[in-house]
Amino acid sequence: MSNHLTTVLYTAAAIAFSASAMAAQPASKELRETANKLFQPIPEAQVVIADRKIPDDQIQLGKWLFFEPRLSKSHIISCNTCHSVGTGGADNIPTSIGHGWQHGPRNSPTVFNAVFNIAQFWDGRAADLKEQAKGPVQASVEMNATPQHVEDTLRSIPEYVEFFAKAFPGEKQAITFDNMATAIEAFESTLTTPNSRFDQFLAGKETLSGTELSGLNLFINKGCVACHSGINVGGQGYFPFGVIKKPGAEVLPTDDKGRFAVTNTASDEYVFRAGPLRNIALTAPYFHSGEVWDLEQAVAIMGTSQLGHELNEGEVKSITAFLHTLTGEQPTVEYPILPRSTAATPKPEK
Amino acid sequence: MSNHLTTVLYTAAAIAFSASAMAAQPASKELRETANKLFQPIPEAQVVIADRKIPDDQIQLGKWLFFEPRLSKSHIISCNTCHSVGTGGADNIPTSIGHGWQHGPRNSPTVFNAVFNIAQFWDGRAADLKEQAKGPVQASVEMNATPQHVEDTLRSIPEYVEFFAKAFPGEKQAITFDNMATAIEAFESTLTTPNSRFDQFLAGKETLSGTELSGLNLFINKGCVACHSGINVGGQGYFPFGVIKKPGAEVLPTDDKGRFAVTNTASDEYVFRAGPLRNIALTAPYFHSGEVWDLEQAVAIMGTSQLGHELNEGEVKSITAFLHTLTGEQPTVEYPILPRSTAATPKPEK
Repeated sequence: MSNHLTTVLYTAAAIAFSASAMAAQPASKELRETANKLFQPIPEAQVVIADRKIPDDQIQLGKWLFFEPRLSKSHIISCNTCHSVGTGGADNIPTSIGHGWQHGPRNSPTVFNAVFNIAQFWDGRAADLKEQAKGPVQASVEMNATPQHVEDTLRSIPEYVEFFAKAFPGEKQAITFDNMATAIEAFESTLTTPNSRFDQFLAGKETLSGTELSGLNLFINKGCVACHSGINVGGQGYFPFGVIKKPGAEVLPTDDKGRFAVTNTASDEYVFRAGPLRNIALTAPYFHSGEVWDLEQAVAIMGTSQLGHELNEGEVKSITAFLHTLTGEQPTVEYPILPRSTAATPKPEK
Repeated sequence: MSNHLTTVLYTAAAIAFSASAMAAQPASKELRETANKLFQPIPEAQVVIADRKIPDDQIQLGKWLFFEPRLSKSHIISCNTCHSVGTGGADNIPTSIGHGWQHGPRNSPTVFNAVFNIAQFWDGRAADLKEQAKGPVQASVEMNATPQHVEDTLRSIPEYVEFFAKAFPGEKQAITFDNMATAIEAFESTLTTPNSRFDQFLAGKETLSGTELSGLNLFINKGCVACHSGINVGGQGYFPFGVIKKPGAEVLPTDDKGRFAVTNTASDEYVFRAGPLRNIALTAPYFHSGEVWDLEQAVAIMGTSQLGHELNEGEVKSITAFLHTLTGEQPTVEYPILPRSTAATPKPEK
């Protein structure tokens, strides 16, 4: 069966959407130069992690593992459950639902382009994607498994034994919890979304409408870029949520003190990693509480809480239109055919 | 990123597995002729449902819907959750886990080749895949949604409005619960697994080992074929579980009377549709209770309960080896990129 048609149709829909916005307009040289100083495009080339070239075998193994529900205690939750490659790398619900239908404390951040963030999780408690990958597997409200469960499971399946040996050559015991995380990081580093209309604009093309250009201008000049800049238009630093005025408890729950739990430093109370805004139009609901569904409302809240500025309706609409241009090409992922369990594979537990 | 390597590696693993079995041996002309009378291969050509050529647009729309978690009340359960294309079209747990972490009453049957079954569900209560598709969406222990929720959701998303109009041209209101089911059936009809080693054998090739041929011979001559024949090696008729001797309540729970609930006929107590055995090696655990993990044990139970025959260890191993040859080429499915929600899209509910 051809999957080509889906792509064609989706692209057609996307084009129809952009065509319904205002037609592209020439941007001033100055705006484009400023933008190019503040932001970098998502690269089309394969990403390098910490100066190491990532072996294809690790990427492919990581893809199996990313979709592998047997890493969870119940055998029904995989990385893709909360970071679905079909829905912007997130799950589009306020906070993720995990083992036993427990609700996690924070909104699931997108895995797309996460490799470019300064650190992982809303509070930056994991230095990189490898460290991050070990979290949800073990969290009792998420996959609720243990490193032992993971290693026992993978070692019981001959195809994994063979595949880990290929991906980690020369290691006597290639199947380890640590190598699982290395492989998942390798796959996740390929989940990037290049070639957004904004990136085309950065490259010199006239791809933005007048409204979108006006939104970009506001985004820069109102001060949004103070926290949301760089390759991911955010995700590069830590800032207090409510630096000027704290939003209500429904948006900023008082019992989640953010980075304070990581650093135990009073000045880190209610500090979070600035949200990376790539593909933000695809990943509602917003903020770590996941309580705001409307991107315009999120922009307005940011104006009030972070800039101390009541953005007017036109400004909110323009900035939101600009944010829509950050949606890039979504990754093409063929669903992996997972190897079957053996008699030695641990059974799922309720 | 190339997905080619996964296929290569998986194929390599599959070949390694088959190579570790006994080498292929010439089959007697008689056995092949008998097999060709009892079984039919999975066709490589596109399936026709009820004499209608299925439009590509319906197949592609159905693929979106098959992976669409917003059809569920929680927005986290899709058809693929319990019928994963990565794990033999099933979920590899005893009984499926649905809304609120409720456990369903029966093991999730594979969606692969389901189009060839006489009817759907373990008790055949749905005439076809279209009727079947409406069940789990509404079942409170599964996706827990309503036709209204589905229609409201799909009508709120412009890409679905456009896509349904293409897939169902000429209909004033193309987005209906009924058309959702038609499209899902269209996609599911493509989830077939042709070219198993057994099908290659039926086509005249020497693809089976001595043990596997012996297993096929036993499968025919011990009487397994009385219920497990045809294109799906089962799935074609209804039979009492425990026709000779009822298995224990852990395998055949007394409160699930099977087809009796459909027909209300005393003779249908504990009657079920004979399990289709295509890809059976991929879809443990077994039986409607999902309480038997070992395929050899399942074969032995069938001998005792259905044939009144204690199969010896060698017979069980041979039949099981034959069943492994029913694993066909798994479908290649590119993960669909789903269109984003709008302000009008119903929100997920816990």
